[in-house]
Amino acid sequence: MRIISLLTDFGLKDNFVGVVKAVILSINKDVEIVDITHQILRHNIYEASFLLLNSFRFFPKGTIFLVVVDPGVGSSRYPIAIKTRNYYFVGPDNGVLSLAAEKDFIEKIVILEDEKYFLKNISSTFHARDIFAPVAAYISKKIPINKFGKKLDTIKKIEIPSIKMTKDFIYAKIIYQDNFGNLVTNLKKVELLEFLKNADFVAILNNKRIYKIYNCYSQAKDSEPFFIEGSFSFLEIAIKNKSAANFFRIKDKNFIDFFIRKRDYKREV
Amino acid sequence: MRIISLLTDFGLKDNFVGVVKAVILSINKDVEIVDITHQILRHNIYEASFLLLNSFRFFPKGTIFLVVVDPGVGSSRYPIAIKTRNYYFVGPDNGVLSLAAEKDFIEKIVILEDEKYFLKNISSTFHARDIFAPVAAYISKKIPINKFGKKLDTIKKIEIPSIKMTKDFIYAKIIYQDNFGNLVTNLKKVELLEFLKNADFVAILNNKRIYKIYNCYSQAKDSEPFFIEGSFSFLEIAIKNKSAANFFRIKDKNFIDFFIRKRDYKREV
Amino acid sequence: MRIISLLTDFGLKDNFVGVVKAVILSINKDVEIVDITHQILRHNIYEASFLLLNSFRFFPKGTIFLVVVDPGVGSSRYPIAIKTRNYYFVGPDNGVLSLAAEKDFIEKIVILEDEKYFLKNISSTFHARDIFAPVAAYISKKIPINKFGKKLDTIKKIEIPSIKMTKDFIYAKIIYQDNFGNLVTNLKKVELLEFLKNADFVAILNNKRIYKIYNCYSQAKDSEPFFIEGSFSFLEIAIKNKSAANFFRIKDKNFIDFFIRKRDYKREV
Repeated sequence: MRIISLLTDFGLKDNFVGVVKAVILSINKDVEIVDITHQILRHNIYEASFLLLNSFRFFPKGTIFLVVVDPGVGSSRYPIAIKTRNYYFVGPDNGVLSLAAEKDFIEKIVILEDEKYFLKNISSTFHARDIFAPVAAYISKKIPINKFGKKLDTIKKIEIPSIKMTKDFIYAKIIYQDNFGNLVTNLKKVELLEFLKNADFVAILNNKRIYKIYNCYSQAKDSEPFFIEGSFSFLEIAIKNKSAANFFRIKDKNFIDFFIRKRDYKREV
Repeated sequence: MRIISLLTDFGLKDNFVGVVKAVILSINKDVEIVDITHQILRHNIYEASFLLLNSFRFFPKGTIFLVVVDPGVGSSRYPIAIKTRNYYFVGPDNGVLSLAAEKDFIEKIVILEDEKYFLKNISSTFHARDIFAPVAAYISKKIPINKFGKKLDTIKKIEIPSIKMTKDFIYAKIIYQDNFGNLVTNLKKVELLEFLKNADFVAILNNKRIYKIYNCYSQAKDSEPFFIEGSFSFLEIAIKNKSAANFFRIKDKNFIDFFIRKRDYKREV
Repeated sequence: MRIISLLTDFGLKDNFVGVVKAVILSINKDVEIVDITHQILRHNIYEASFLLLNSFRFFPKGTIFLVVVDPGVGSSRYPIAIKTRNYYFVGPDNGVLSLAAEKDFIEKIVILEDEKYFLKNISSTFHARDIFAPVAAYISKKIPINKFGKKLDTIKKIEIPSIKMTKDFIYAKIIYQDNFGNLVTNLKKVELLEFLKNADFVAILNNKRIYKIYNCYSQAKDSEPFFIEGSFSFLEIAIKNKSAANFFRIKDKNFIDFFIRKRDYKREV
């Protein structure tokens, strides 16, 4: 039994997610549907692509990812399907699929064109229901993706910004904040340790300071911000039992800058 | 394998939805449960009936809809099951099932009376768990609905308000607002186009104006409100990448009035 | 087919729940996953244990409960699995499993030690993904729990506070508030009736008064607070179609005190 996994910005208040599942199950009853999340911030392609990148490899091979964050719905952006080494991805060609699909090595990309595989009446606002869900369901029934339309050579890309490192400074960014208010950075623990070579450090984010890196939450004092290697395999800025996002006054915005420097005991109090 | 689809105002914070699913699976393990939504505004029978109307036809034939928005739980309102041409509906007889059931043509209505098909101890506050979930599960096991109790001739009804049209004006209403803040109206695109006969128009909602109708979001300018034919097959009032509900200061209230008139260039600036 | 039921404080914004399901399905595709809730207040072990206690018995025998509210993740608290008379429980040994597991009679407790049953790289922040999900999946594949590690004699316990009763007073507490704002107490209806012996009563909570106990919501007047026997089988404080939590200004805090006394007509207005 194939798995179709859903990742959207639809929220859970309306009937949108339920209807997408209904369309899938009307085409293939023998499919297991697993939600990743439907609470991507509206139209935040980057967040969806980041969560997809950090989810896909935990799913069984052959899983079909139906990913719809689609501000350009009804316009000229292509609806596409991608076959990678181990998985399938279906969604709009606006970059949302790119981080995960490229990580798993893209084997084929097609434009979704053949209306035989769509619902009968295509709305201009709900392609998830009318195009993407039926196509994902047909993939789960082993229809090869080249049946859906002509080949595309390349897809739109999104990038996770990379750190910059000088002799004395690391310039990094907050690239995601989770539900607990943990601030995921684009800095790896090995990179920081290599840079420090056992020196102490100070990190500065929104005029507040972080001095510590810990291996688990329980090492931290109450209310003390610290770095910890998180489940996205980057360093995260956290506070034990509290929201670091609140403490550092980080709003729902991507790519907030911070920097780290080795600590100079002569200059610091 | 039968599908049981759930639509409630329970929210997702408590264990209510999980317990309803547990009861169903304890009676029939070979059933697929699909959530439409559990975030209907508390006791808003109309919203639930509207979403059910706009969801049911996407599900496979034979699907059983378990719909519980039930302010009268424990009082004299009947618990009922309905067989329509293609589907089954289970819930309280307060109108919540009416729009969908009537659309699919009602074949039989029964009152849920036979306690053999209920949980053993019936609470006065949670009939979804004690009565509706077990009955839905027994329907999925092919128990004919006339086993549950005596026939009922008719159900309570809810109506979607209809537009009023004069030579110069259309009087319409907002009948739903979605998670994105799009405002679903009770006006069809064909009705508006027929009325206009190529004339320009202005629509007035809460003292703000709308001049445009577009085919897709990308045709609109930033911050410009417009009409678009939405996935509920009515015109919706939308703003690209923004919440029209916020812009027009529409709260969670149903049936807000607005009107449309043909535009008079002599009088308008 | 076995059921794995999930209860966490992960929320639904991130990919955490989806990834846990992916890990389970990668190990055992023939499992049905049912969410109880993922919206436990962050790190509120008590709330999770209370909802688990009030959910488990509705699930089919053999269900595996994966319960992760884990402020001590990565520290010295044990990861454990419990076999009870009818069910399995997997999670951290911080009390979250105790109310339910003890109610169903504990047969065996083991510490999760054998890394053969874990994901390959164990993070220090996401044991739900790396340890608990794979172990639950292996239990669903009939691996006996003594394979996972050595026996533990006892688990950490949580208690629901009990009422205190004098000749004239009952001292009780709010032990949970649901999504509708109903206030679940630790007082049973039979206890209150026994105490009153047909006398009238007044209950005082945050300086506001309750005089009535009803059998169903529809007996109450608008805006009148009252007691009703709720689905958790305790008395709840409710207001018809409104939030009692708002009326009594109860925040998300557990164990708020209130008292009940028989009503003295000579002293009261």
